[in-house]
Amino acid sequence: MGLLGHLHRGVSRVARRTACTNSLNSPHLVTNSPMPAIDPDTLTLVNMRFCPYAQRTVLCLNAKEVDYQIINCALMTRPDWVWQLNPLGKVPILLHKGLVIYESLVTCEWVEEALPGRRLHSEDPGQRARDRMLTELFNKVIGPQMKIWFGWKIGQGPEHRAKHMAESVTNMGHFERELAARATTYFGGASAPGWLDYMLWPWFERLASYGEVYPDEGLEFPYSSLPHLAAWIGRMEADPAVLQYSLPQQVHTDFIKTLVSGAPNYDIIVDK
Amino acid sequence: MGLLGHLHRGVSRVARRTACTNSLNSPHLVTNSPMPAIDPDTLTLVNMRFCPYAQRTVLCLNAKEVDYQIINCALMTRPDWVWQLNPLGKVPILLHKGLVIYESLVTCEWVEEALPGRRLHSEDPGQRARDRMLTELFNKVIGPQMKIWFGWKIGQGPEHRAKHMAESVTNMGHFERELAARATTYFGGASAPGWLDYMLWPWFERLASYGEVYPDEGLEFPYSSLPHLAAWIGRMEADPAVLQYSLPQQVHTDFIKTLVSGAPNYDIIVDK
Repeated sequence: MGLLGHLHRGVSRVARRTACTNSLNSPHLVTNSPMPAIDPDTLTLVNMRFCPYAQRTVLCLNAKEVDYQIINCALMTRPDWVWQLNPLGKVPILLHKGLVIYESLVTCEWVEEALPGRRLHSEDPGQRARDRMLTELFNKVIGPQMKIWFGWKIGQGPEHRAKHMAESVTNMGHFERELAARATTYFGGASAPGWLDYMLWPWFERLASYGEVYPDEGLEFPYSSLPHLAAWIGRMEADPAVLQYSLPQQVHTDFIKTLVSGAPNYDIIVDK
Repeated sequence: MGLLGHLHRGVSRVARRTACTNSLNSPHLVTNSPMPAIDPDTLTLVNMRFCPYAQRTVLCLNAKEVDYQIINCALMTRPDWVWQLNPLGKVPILLHKGLVIYESLVTCEWVEEALPGRRLHSEDPGQRARDRMLTELFNKVIGPQMKIWFGWKIGQGPEHRAKHMAESVTNMGHFERELAARATTYFGGASAPGWLDYMLWPWFERLASYGEVYPDEGLEFPYSSLPHLAAWIGRMEADPAVLQYSLPQQVHTDFIKTLVSGAPNYDIIVDK
Protein backbone atom coordinates (compact mmCIF):
# COMPACT_ATOMS: atom_id res chain seq x y z
CA MET A 1 0.00 0.00 0.00
CA GLY A 2 3.01 2.32 0.04
CA LEU A 3 2.43 5.69 1.68
CA LEU A 4 -1.33 5.14 1.58
CA GLY A 5 -0.78 3.28 4.81
CA HIS A 6 -3.01 1.83 7.44
CA LEU A 7 -2.08 4.50 9.97
CA HIS A 8 -5.32 6.48 9.84
CA ARG A 9 -7.42 3.77 8.28
CA GLY A 10 -8.83 1.68 11.10
CA VAL A 11 -12.48 0.71 10.79
CA SER A 12 -13.08 2.04 14.31
CA ARG A 13 -12.74 5.51 12.83
CA VAL A 14 -16.08 5.15 11.06
CA ALA A 15 -17.84 5.47 14.40
CA ARG A 16 -16.19 8.80 15.22
CA ARG A 17 -18.46 11.84 15.71
CA THR A 18 -18.70 13.77 12.46
CA ALA A 19 -20.57 16.84 11.29
CA CYS A 20 -22.95 14.33 9.75
CA THR A 21 -25.74 14.09 12.32
CA ASN A 22 -27.19 10.82 11.11
CA SER A 23 -25.23 7.94 9.57
CA LEU A 24 -22.64 8.09 6.81
CA ASN A 25 -23.28 4.44 6.14
CA SER A 26 -27.05 4.11 5.95
CA PRO A 27 -28.50 1.64 3.41
CA HIS A 28 -28.74 3.01 -0.14
CA LEU A 29 -32.27 3.74 -1.31
CA VAL A 30 -33.23 2.10 -4.60
CA THR A 31 -35.72 2.38 -7.45
CA ASN A 32 -38.94 2.01 -5.52
CA SER A 33 -37.78 3.45 -2.19
CA PRO A 34 -40.06 6.32 -1.22
CA MET A 35 -38.42 9.69 -0.75
CA PRO A 36 -37.67 10.12 2.97
CA ALA A 37 -39.30 12.97 4.83
CA ILE A 38 -36.87 15.88 4.64
CA ASP A 39 -36.86 18.74 7.11
CA PRO A 40 -36.34 21.86 4.97
CA ASP A 41 -34.38 23.49 7.81
CA THR A 42 -31.88 20.61 7.97
CA LEU A 43 -29.09 20.71 5.43
CA THR A 44 -29.45 17.39 3.62
CA LEU A 45 -27.07 15.71 1.18
CA VAL A 46 -28.27 13.11 -1.29
CA ASN A 47 -25.15 10.97 -1.55
CA MET A 48 -23.72 7.64 -2.60
CA ARG A 49 -21.16 6.37 -0.07
CA PHE A 50 -18.54 5.55 -2.73
CA CYS A 51 -19.09 8.47 -5.12
CA PRO A 52 -15.93 10.62 -5.36
CA TYR A 53 -17.88 13.60 -6.69
CA ALA A 54 -20.29 13.62 -3.74
CA GLN A 55 -17.27 13.22 -1.45
CA ARG A 56 -16.12 16.67 -2.55
CA THR A 57 -19.26 18.14 -0.99
CA VAL A 58 -18.84 16.06 2.18
CA LEU A 59 -15.24 17.26 2.56
CA CYS A 60 -16.27 20.92 2.29
CA LEU A 61 -19.07 20.42 4.81
CA ASN A 62 -16.71 18.62 7.20
CA ALA A 63 -14.05 21.31 6.81
CA LYS A 64 -16.60 23.97 7.72
CA GLU A 65 -17.86 21.86 10.63
CA VAL A 66 -21.50 22.45 9.75
CA ASP A 67 -24.11 19.82 10.60
CA TYR A 68 -25.82 17.91 7.82
CA GLN A 69 -27.83 14.76 7.22
CA ILE A 70 -27.07 12.19 4.56
CA ILE A 71 -29.46 10.19 2.39
CA ASN A 72 -27.59 7.45 0.54
CA CYS A 73 -28.93 6.40 -2.87
CA ALA A 74 -27.93 3.61 -5.21
CA LEU A 75 -26.92 4.91 -8.64
CA MET A 76 -27.42 1.90 -10.91
CA THR A 77 -30.92 1.46 -9.43
CA ARG A 78 -31.59 5.00 -8.30
CA PRO A 79 -34.97 6.15 -6.99
CA ASP A 80 -37.18 8.06 -9.45
CA TRP A 81 -37.23 11.06 -7.13
CA VAL A 82 -33.48 11.52 -7.67
CA TRP A 83 -34.30 12.24 -11.32
CA GLN A 84 -36.96 14.69 -10.19
CA LEU A 85 -34.49 16.55 -7.98
CA ASN A 86 -31.74 16.52 -10.62
CA PRO A 87 -32.50 16.07 -14.34
CA LEU A 88 -28.92 14.81 -14.70
CA GLY A 89 -29.78 11.99 -12.26
CA LYS A 90 -26.53 12.29 -10.33
CA VAL A 91 -25.33 12.88 -6.79
CA PRO A 92 -24.42 15.02 -4.91
CA ILE A 93 -27.66 16.95 -4.41
CA LEU A 94 -27.90 19.43 -1.54
CA LEU A 95 -31.31 20.31 -0.11
CA HIS A 96 -31.78 23.32 2.17
CA LYS A 97 -34.76 25.57 2.86
CA GLY A 98 -36.35 24.82 -0.51
CA LEU A 99 -33.10 25.08 -2.46
CA VAL A 100 -32.08 22.09 -4.60
CA ILE A 101 -28.45 22.25 -5.70
CA TYR A 102 -26.68 19.65 -7.82
CA GLU A 103 -23.31 19.26 -9.60
CA SER A 104 -20.38 18.72 -7.25
CA LEU A 105 -18.52 21.96 -7.97
CA VAL A 106 -21.70 24.03 -7.73
CA THR A 107 -22.62 22.49 -4.38
CA CYS A 108 -19.11 23.20 -3.07
CA GLU A 109 -19.20 26.84 -4.22
CA TRP A 110 -22.54 27.22 -2.42
CA VAL A 111 -21.17 25.62 0.75
CA GLU A 112 -18.28 28.08 0.59
CA GLU A 113 -20.46 31.12 -0.06
CA ALA A 114 -23.51 30.42 2.07
CA LEU A 115 -22.33 28.51 5.15
CA PRO A 116 -20.23 29.53 8.15
CA GLY A 117 -16.88 27.95 8.97
CA ARG A 118 -13.34 28.35 7.73
CA ARG A 119 -12.76 29.75 4.27
CA LEU A 120 -11.70 27.19 1.64
CA HIS A 121 -11.08 29.45 -1.35
CA SER A 122 -8.17 31.87 -1.54
CA GLU A 123 -8.86 35.54 -0.77
CA ASP A 124 -7.23 36.39 -4.10
CA PRO A 125 -9.46 36.20 -7.22
CA GLY A 126 -6.50 35.20 -9.39
CA GLN A 127 -5.66 32.31 -7.07
CA ARG A 128 -9.31 31.27 -6.95
CA ALA A 129 -9.37 31.24 -10.75
CA ARG A 130 -6.21 29.13 -10.82
CA ASP A 131 -7.69 26.64 -8.34
CA ARG A 132 -10.93 26.37 -10.32
CA MET A 133 -8.99 26.00 -13.56
CA LEU A 134 -6.82 23.22 -12.14
CA THR A 135 -9.97 21.50 -10.89
CA GLU A 136 -11.15 21.45 -14.52
CA LEU A 137 -7.74 20.26 -15.69
CA PHE A 138 -7.98 17.43 -13.16
CA ASN A 139 -10.69 15.92 -15.37
CA LYS A 140 -7.74 14.68 -17.44
CA VAL A 141 -6.63 12.68 -14.39
CA ILE A 142 -10.14 11.46 -13.58
CA GLY A 143 -11.20 10.54 -17.13
CA PRO A 144 -8.67 7.73 -17.67
CA GLN A 145 -9.41 6.36 -14.18
CA MET A 146 -13.12 6.19 -15.02
CA LYS A 147 -12.15 4.19 -18.10
CA ILE A 148 -10.43 1.65 -15.83
CA TRP A 149 -13.62 1.34 -13.77
CA PHE A 150 -15.99 1.07 -16.70
CA GLY A 151 -13.84 -0.30 -19.53
CA TRP A 152 -15.09 -3.84 -18.86
CA LYS A 153 -18.38 -2.74 -20.43
CA ILE A 154 -16.65 -2.52 -23.80
CA GLY A 155 -14.41 -5.53 -23.31
CA GLN A 156 -11.23 -3.69 -22.29
CA GLY A 157 -8.44 -5.71 -20.66
CA PRO A 158 -5.08 -5.29 -18.91
CA GLU A 159 -3.35 -3.50 -21.78
CA HIS A 160 -6.11 -0.86 -21.94
CA ARG A 161 -6.05 -0.42 -18.16
CA ALA A 162 -2.27 0.06 -18.16
CA LYS A 163 -2.61 2.68 -20.88
CA HIS A 164 -5.38 4.50 -19.00
CA MET A 165 -3.35 4.55 -15.77
CA ALA A 166 -0.26 5.79 -17.61
CA GLU A 167 -2.32 8.62 -19.11
CA SER A 168 -3.78 9.49 -15.70
CA VAL A 169 -0.32 9.52 -14.11
CA THR A 170 1.08 11.67 -16.92
CA ASN A 171 -1.65 14.22 -16.26
CA MET A 172 -0.95 14.08 -12.53
CA GLY A 173 2.33 15.68 -13.53
CA HIS A 174 0.57 19.04 -13.78
CA PHE A 175 -0.33 18.74 -10.08
CA GLU A 176 3.10 17.46 -9.04
CA ARG A 177 4.65 20.56 -10.65
CA GLU A 178 2.00 22.84 -9.15
CA LEU A 179 2.66 21.54 -5.64
CA ALA A 180 6.40 21.94 -6.15
CA ALA A 181 5.90 25.51 -7.38
CA ARG A 182 3.59 26.46 -4.52
CA ALA A 183 6.06 24.95 -2.04
CA THR A 184 3.45 24.72 0.71
CA THR A 185 2.02 21.93 2.83
CA TYR A 186 -1.27 21.85 0.92
CA PHE A 187 -2.38 23.36 -2.38
CA GLY A 188 -4.38 25.71 -0.15
CA GLY A 189 -1.43 26.89 1.94
CA ALA A 190 0.62 26.02 5.00
CA SER A 191 -2.00 25.43 7.67
CA ALA A 192 -4.90 23.42 6.23
CA PRO A 193 -6.24 22.00 2.97
CA GLY A 194 -8.18 24.43 0.80
CA TRP A 195 -10.46 24.32 -2.22
CA LEU A 196 -8.17 22.53 -4.65
CA ASP A 197 -7.03 19.98 -2.06
CA TYR A 198 -10.59 18.87 -1.39
CA MET A 199 -11.62 18.90 -5.07
CA LEU A 200 -8.79 16.46 -5.91
CA TRP A 201 -8.64 14.27 -2.83
CA PRO A 202 -11.44 11.71 -3.50
CA TRP A 203 -9.54 10.25 -6.47
CA PHE A 204 -6.31 9.95 -4.50
CA GLU A 205 -8.09 8.16 -1.64
CA ARG A 206 -9.02 5.39 -4.11
CA LEU A 207 -5.74 5.32 -5.99
CA ALA A 208 -4.16 2.34 -4.24
CA SER A 209 -7.23 0.23 -5.03
CA TYR A 210 -6.50 -0.11 -8.75
CA GLY A 211 -3.50 -2.31 -8.06
CA GLU A 212 -5.55 -4.32 -5.57
CA VAL A 213 -8.52 -4.82 -7.89
CA TYR A 214 -6.25 -5.65 -10.84
CA PRO A 215 -3.00 -7.06 -9.39
CA ASP A 216 0.10 -7.54 -11.52
CA GLU A 217 -1.01 -5.05 -14.17
CA GLY A 218 1.33 -2.22 -13.17
CA LEU A 219 -1.47 0.04 -11.92
CA GLU A 220 0.37 1.12 -8.77
CA PHE A 221 0.82 4.84 -8.09
CA PRO A 222 4.44 5.78 -8.92
CA TYR A 223 5.43 7.31 -5.60
CA SER A 224 9.04 7.93 -6.49
CA SER A 225 8.30 9.86 -9.66
CA LEU A 226 5.63 12.06 -8.04
CA PRO A 227 7.23 12.78 -4.66
CA HIS A 228 5.37 16.00 -3.88
CA LEU A 229 2.00 14.35 -4.52
CA ALA A 230 3.08 11.29 -2.52
CA ALA A 231 3.92 13.44 0.51
CA TRP A 232 0.71 15.43 0.04
CA ILE A 233 -1.31 12.19 0.11
CA GLY A 234 0.19 11.36 3.49
CA ARG A 235 -0.69 14.79 4.86
CA MET A 236 -4.22 14.75 3.44
CA GLU A 237 -4.93 11.35 5.01
CA ALA A 238 -4.46 12.98 8.43
CA ASP A 239 -6.76 15.96 7.82
CA PRO A 240 -9.83 15.85 10.09
CA ALA A 241 -12.32 16.62 7.27
CA VAL A 242 -10.82 13.77 5.24
CA LEU A 243 -10.60 11.38 8.20
CA GLN A 244 -14.25 11.81 9.11
CA TYR A 245 -15.33 10.31 5.78
CA SER A 246 -12.41 8.20 4.56
CA LEU A 247 -12.65 4.43 4.32
CA PRO A 248 -10.04 1.71 4.76
CA GLN A 249 -8.37 0.96 1.44
CA GLN A 250 -9.75 -2.58 1.56
CA VAL A 251 -13.32 -1.24 1.61
CA HIS A 252 -12.71 0.87 -1.50
CA THR A 253 -11.13 -2.14 -3.14
CA ASP A 254 -14.03 -4.41 -2.19
CA PHE A 255 -16.57 -1.92 -3.55
CA ILE A 256 -14.68 -1.39 -6.81
CA LYS A 257 -14.49 -5.17 -7.26
CA THR A 258 -18.30 -5.31 -7.14
CA LEU A 259 -18.48 -2.32 -9.50
CA VAL A 260 -16.25 -3.85 -12.15
CA SER A 261 -18.21 -7.10 -11.84
CA GLY A 262 -21.26 -5.19 -13.11
CA ALA A 263 -23.17 -5.52 -9.83
CA PRO A 264 -22.07 -2.69 -7.50
CA ASN A 265 -22.81 -3.47 -3.87
CA TYR A 266 -23.45 -0.03 -2.39
CA ASP A 267 -24.23 -1.51 1.02
CA ILE A 268 -21.01 -3.35 1.85
CA ILE A 269 -20.43 -1.25 4.98
CA VAL A 270 -23.99 -0.50 6.07
CA ASP A 271 -24.38 0.37 9.74
CA LYS A 272 -26.30 -2.22 11.71
CA MET B 1 -35.46 33.22 -40.00
CA GLY B 2 -38.43 33.69 -37.66
CA LEU B 3 -37.86 35.94 -34.66
CA LEU B 4 -34.10 35.72 -35.14
CA GLY B 5 -34.61 38.54 -37.56
CA HIS B 6 -32.36 40.84 -39.50
CA LEU B 7 -33.28 43.78 -37.31
CA HIS B 8 -30.07 43.96 -35.30
CA ARG B 9 -27.93 41.95 -37.64
CA GLY B 10 -26.49 44.34 -40.21
CA VAL B 11 -22.82 43.86 -41.12
CA SER B 12 -22.26 47.56 -40.47
CA ARG B 13 -22.54 46.78 -36.78
CA VAL B 14 -19.18 45.00 -36.82
CA ALA B 15 -17.43 48.36 -37.11
CA ARG B 16 -19.05 49.77 -33.97
CA ARG B 17 -16.76 50.81 -31.08
CA THR B 18 -16.58 47.98 -28.57
CA ALA B 19 -14.72 47.38 -25.34
CA CYS B 20 -12.34 45.38 -27.51
CA THR B 21 -9.55 47.85 -28.23
CA ASN B 22 -8.11 46.08 -31.23
CA SER B 23 -10.09 44.05 -33.78
CA LEU B 24 -12.69 41.38 -33.13
CA ASN B 25 -12.06 40.08 -36.62
CA SER B 26 -8.29 39.79 -36.91
CA PRO B 27 -6.87 36.86 -38.89
CA HIS B 28 -6.64 33.63 -36.90
CA LEU B 29 -3.11 32.58 -35.97
CA VAL B 30 -2.15 29.06 -37.01
CA THR B 31 0.33 26.28 -36.23
CA ASN B 32 3.55 28.11 -36.95
CA SER B 33 2.42 31.64 -36.14
CA PRO B 34 4.71 33.12 -33.49
CA MET B 35 3.07 34.19 -30.25
CA PRO B 36 2.33 37.92 -30.48
CA ALA B 37 3.97 40.27 -28.03
CA ILE B 38 1.55 40.59 -25.11
CA ASP B 39 1.55 43.54 -22.74
CA PRO B 40 1.03 41.98 -19.29
CA ASP B 41 -0.90 45.07 -18.19
CA THR B 42 -3.41 44.72 -21.03
CA LEU B 43 -6.22 42.24 -20.47
CA THR B 44 -5.87 39.87 -23.43
CA LEU B 45 -8.26 37.19 -24.63
CA VAL B 46 -7.07 34.29 -26.75
CA ASN B 47 -10.19 33.66 -28.80
CA MET B 48 -11.66 32.03 -31.89
CA ARG B 49 -14.21 34.30 -33.58
CA PHE B 50 -16.83 31.55 -33.91
CA CYS B 51 -16.27 29.72 -30.59
CA PRO B 52 -19.43 29.88 -28.45
CA TYR B 53 -17.47 29.10 -25.27
CA ALA B 54 -15.06 32.00 -25.79
CA GLN B 55 -18.06 34.18 -26.59
CA ARG B 56 -19.21 33.72 -22.97
CA THR B 57 -16.06 35.51 -21.83
CA VAL B 58 -16.48 38.26 -24.42
CA LEU B 59 -20.08 38.86 -23.31
CA CYS B 60 -19.03 39.24 -19.66
CA LEU B 61 -16.21 41.62 -20.61
CA ASN B 62 -18.57 43.66 -22.80
CA ALA B 63 -21.23 43.77 -20.08
CA LYS B 64 -18.65 45.13 -17.64
CA GLU B 65 -17.41 47.62 -20.23
CA VAL B 66 -13.78 46.82 -19.52
CA ASP B 67 -11.16 47.20 -22.26
CA TYR B 68 -9.47 44.10 -23.67
CA GLN B 69 -7.48 42.94 -26.65
CA ILE B 70 -8.26 39.87 -28.70
CA ILE B 71 -5.89 37.38 -30.28
CA ASN B 72 -7.77 35.08 -32.65
CA CYS B 73 -6.44 31.53 -33.08
CA ALA B 74 -7.45 28.73 -35.40
CA LEU B 75 -8.46 25.60 -33.51
CA MET B 76 -7.98 22.82 -36.07
CA THR B 77 -4.48 24.19 -36.77
CA ARG B 78 -3.80 25.92 -33.48
CA PRO B 79 -0.40 27.42 -32.60
CA ASP B 80 1.80 25.34 -30.28
CA TRP B 81 1.87 28.16 -27.74
CA VAL B 82 -1.89 27.72 -27.19
CA TRP B 83 -1.07 24.25 -25.83
CA GLN B 84 1.60 25.79 -23.63
CA LEU B 85 -0.85 28.31 -22.19
CA ASN B 86 -3.61 25.71 -21.73
CA PRO B 87 -2.87 21.97 -21.50
CA LEU B 88 -6.45 21.40 -22.68
CA GLY B 89 -5.60 23.28 -25.89
CA LYS B 90 -8.83 25.25 -25.93
CA VAL B 91 -10.04 28.84 -25.98
CA PRO B 92 -10.93 31.07 -24.21
CA ILE B 93 -7.69 31.90 -22.41
CA LEU B 94 -7.42 35.18 -20.49
CA LEU B 95 -4.01 36.72 -19.88
CA HIS B 96 -3.51 39.49 -17.34
CA LYS B 97 -0.52 40.57 -15.26
CA GLY B 98 1.06 37.13 -15.40
CA LEU B 99 -2.21 35.26 -14.78
CA VAL B 100 -3.23 32.63 -17.32
CA ILE B 101 -6.88 31.58 -16.96
CA TYR B 102 -8.67 29.03 -19.14
CA GLU B 103 -12.03 27.22 -19.20
CA SER B 104 -14.96 29.46 -20.13
CA LEU B 105 -16.80 29.34 -16.81
CA VAL B 106 -13.62 29.92 -14.83
CA THR B 107 -12.70 32.95 -16.96
CA CYS B 108 -16.21 34.38 -16.47
CA GLU B 109 -16.10 33.89 -12.68
CA TRP B 110 -12.75 35.70 -12.66
CA VAL B 111 -14.11 38.56 -14.78
CA GLU B 112 -16.99 38.85 -12.32
CA GLU B 113 -14.80 38.74 -9.22
CA ALA B 114 -11.74 40.70 -10.30
CA LEU B 115 -12.93 43.39 -12.73
CA PRO B 116 -15.01 46.54 -12.25
CA GLY B 117 -18.36 47.09 -13.94
CA ARG B 118 -21.89 45.94 -13.31
CA ARG B 119 -22.49 42.78 -11.32
CA LEU B 120 -23.57 39.75 -13.36
CA HIS B 121 -24.18 37.21 -10.59
CA SER B 122 -27.09 37.47 -8.18
CA GLU B 123 -26.37 38.90 -4.71
CA ASP B 124 -28.02 35.77 -3.27
CA PRO B 125 -25.81 32.65 -2.91
CA GLY B 126 -28.79 30.34 -3.50
CA GLN B 127 -29.63 32.12 -6.76
CA ARG B 128 -25.97 32.03 -7.81
CA ALA B 129 -25.94 28.29 -7.15
CA ARG B 130 -29.10 27.86 -9.20
CA ASP B 131 -27.63 29.84 -12.13
CA ARG B 132 -24.39 27.83 -12.03
CA MET B 133 -26.35 24.59 -11.80
CA LEU B 134 -28.51 25.50 -14.78
CA THR B 135 -25.36 26.41 -16.71
CA GLU B 136 -24.20 22.83 -16.13
CA LEU B 137 -27.62 21.47 -17.07
CA PHE B 138 -27.38 23.46 -20.32
CA ASN B 139 -24.68 21.01 -21.42
CA LYS B 140 -27.63 18.77 -22.26
CA VAL B 141 -28.75 21.41 -24.76
CA ILE B 142 -25.23 21.97 -26.12
CA GLY B 143 -24.20 18.32 -26.40
CA PRO B 144 -26.72 17.28 -29.06
CA GLN B 145 -25.98 20.47 -31.03
CA MET B 146 -22.28 19.60 -31.05
CA LYS B 147 -23.24 16.21 -32.47
CA ILE B 148 -24.97 18.00 -35.36
CA TRP B 149 -21.78 19.96 -36.05
CA PHE B 150 -19.41 17.02 -35.80
CA GLY B 151 -21.58 14.00 -36.64
CA TRP B 152 -20.32 14.03 -40.24
CA LYS B 153 -17.04 12.67 -38.89
CA ILE B 154 -18.77 9.40 -38.06
CA GLY B 155 -21.02 9.34 -41.10
CA GLN B 156 -24.20 10.68 -39.47
CA GLY B 157 -26.99 11.93 -41.73
CA PRO B 158 -30.35 13.73 -41.63
CA GLU B 159 -32.08 11.23 -39.35
CA HIS B 160 -29.32 11.54 -36.73
CA ARG B 161 -29.37 15.32 -36.96
CA ALA B 162 -33.14 15.43 -36.49
CA LYS B 163 -32.80 13.22 -33.43
CA HIS B 164 -30.02 15.40 -31.98
CA MET B 165 -32.05 18.58 -32.51
CA ALA B 166 -35.14 17.01 -30.95
CA GLU B 167 -33.08 16.05 -27.91
CA SER B 168 -31.60 19.55 -27.65
CA VAL B 169 -35.07 21.13 -27.90
CA THR B 170 -36.47 18.76 -25.28
CA ASN B 171 -33.72 19.84 -22.90
CA MET B 172 -34.41 23.51 -23.70
CA GLY B 173 -37.70 22.83 -21.95
CA HIS B 174 -35.91 23.18 -18.59
CA PHE B 175 -35.01 26.75 -19.57
CA GLU B 176 -38.44 27.55 -20.99
CA ARG B 177 -39.97 26.54 -17.66
CA GLU B 178 -37.31 28.40 -15.68
CA LEU B 179 -37.97 31.63 -17.59
CA ALA B 180 -41.71 31.21 -17.10
CA ALA B 181 -41.21 30.64 -13.36
CA ARG B 182 -38.88 33.61 -12.94
CA ALA B 183 -41.35 35.80 -14.88
CA THR B 184 -38.73 38.45 -15.59
CA THR B 185 -37.30 40.03 -18.72
CA TYR B 186 -34.03 38.12 -18.47
CA PHE B 187 -32.92 35.14 -16.40
CA GLY B 188 -30.91 37.76 -14.49
CA GLY B 189 -33.86 40.02 -13.71
CA ALA B 190 -35.86 42.88 -15.10
CA SER B 191 -33.26 45.39 -16.16
CA ALA B 192 -30.37 43.60 -17.87
CA PRO B 193 -29.05 40.14 -18.70
CA GLY B 194 -27.11 38.43 -15.93
CA TRP B 195 -24.84 35.43 -15.49
CA LEU B 196 -27.15 32.73 -16.81
CA ASP B 197 -28.28 34.83 -19.79
CA TYR B 198 -24.72 35.27 -21.01
CA MET B 199 -23.70 31.66 -20.32
CA LEU B 200 -26.54 30.41 -22.57
CA TRP B 201 -26.69 33.03 -25.27
CA PRO B 202 -23.92 31.93 -27.68
CA TRP B 203 -25.81 28.74 -28.58
CA PHE B 204 -29.04 30.64 -29.22
CA GLU B 205 -27.26 33.13 -31.49
CA ARG B 206 -26.36 30.19 -33.78
CA LEU B 207 -29.62 28.34 -33.52
CA ALA B 208 -31.21 29.54 -36.75
CA SER B 209 -28.15 28.37 -38.71
CA TYR B 210 -28.89 24.66 -38.37
CA GLY B 211 -31.91 24.94 -40.65
CA GLU B 212 -29.86 27.02 -43.08
CA VAL B 213 -26.90 24.64 -43.16
CA TYR B 214 -29.17 21.60 -43.44
CA PRO B 215 -32.43 22.78 -45.08
CA ASP B 216 -35.55 20.61 -45.16
CA GLU B 217 -34.42 18.45 -42.23
CA GLY B 218 -36.73 19.94 -39.63
CA LEU B 219 -33.93 21.57 -37.64
CA GLU B 220 -35.76 24.88 -37.11
CA PHE B 221 -36.19 26.22 -33.59
CA PRO B 222 -39.81 25.56 -32.51
CA TYR B 223 -40.77 29.12 -31.60
CA SER B 224 -44.40 28.36 -30.82
CA SER B 225 -43.64 25.59 -28.34
CA LEU B 226 -40.97 27.58 -26.48
CA PRO B 227 -42.58 31.04 -26.37
CA HIS B 228 -40.69 32.37 -23.35
CA LEU B 229 -37.33 31.44 -24.86
CA ALA B 230 -38.41 32.86 -28.24
CA ALA B 231 -39.25 36.22 -26.67
CA TRP B 232 -36.04 36.12 -24.62
CA ILE B 233 -34.02 35.59 -27.82
CA GLY B 234 -35.51 38.77 -29.26
CA ARG B 235 -34.61 40.75 -26.14
CA MET B 236 -31.09 39.31 -25.93
CA GLU B 237 -30.38 40.25 -29.55
CA ALA B 238 -30.84 43.90 -28.57
CA ASP B 239 -28.55 43.84 -25.53
CA PRO B 240 -25.45 46.03 -26.04
CA ALA B 241 -22.98 43.39 -24.79
CA VAL B 242 -24.48 40.89 -27.22
CA LEU B 243 -24.70 43.36 -30.10
CA GLN B 244 -21.05 44.34 -29.85
CA TYR B 245 -19.99 40.79 -30.73
CA SER B 246 -22.92 39.21 -32.58
CA LEU B 247 -22.69 38.30 -36.24
CA PRO B 248 -25.29 38.26 -38.99
CA GLN B 249 -26.98 34.86 -39.14
CA GLN B 250 -25.64 34.34 -42.65
CA VAL B 251 -22.05 34.62 -41.36
CA HIS B 252 -22.66 31.95 -38.72
CA THR B 253 -24.27 29.78 -41.38
CA ASP B 254 -21.38 30.30 -43.80
CA PHE B 255 -18.83 29.41 -41.12
CA ILE B 256 -20.71 26.30 -40.01
CA LYS B 257 -20.92 25.18 -43.63
CA THR B 258 -17.12 25.28 -43.81
CA LEU B 259 -16.92 23.49 -40.44
CA VAL B 260 -19.16 20.61 -41.49
CA SER B 261 -17.21 20.32 -44.74
CA GLY B 262 -14.16 19.41 -42.63
CA ALA B 263 -12.23 22.58 -43.55
CA PRO B 264 -13.34 25.36 -41.18
CA ASN B 265 -12.59 28.81 -42.59
CA TYR B 266 -11.92 30.87 -39.48
CA ASP B 267 -11.14 33.97 -41.54
CA ILE B 268 -14.36 34.45 -43.50
CA ILE B 269 -14.94 37.92 -42.01
CA VAL B 270 -11.37 39.10 -41.46
CA ASP B 271 -11.00 42.87 -41.25
CA LYS B 272 -9.13 44.38 -44.21
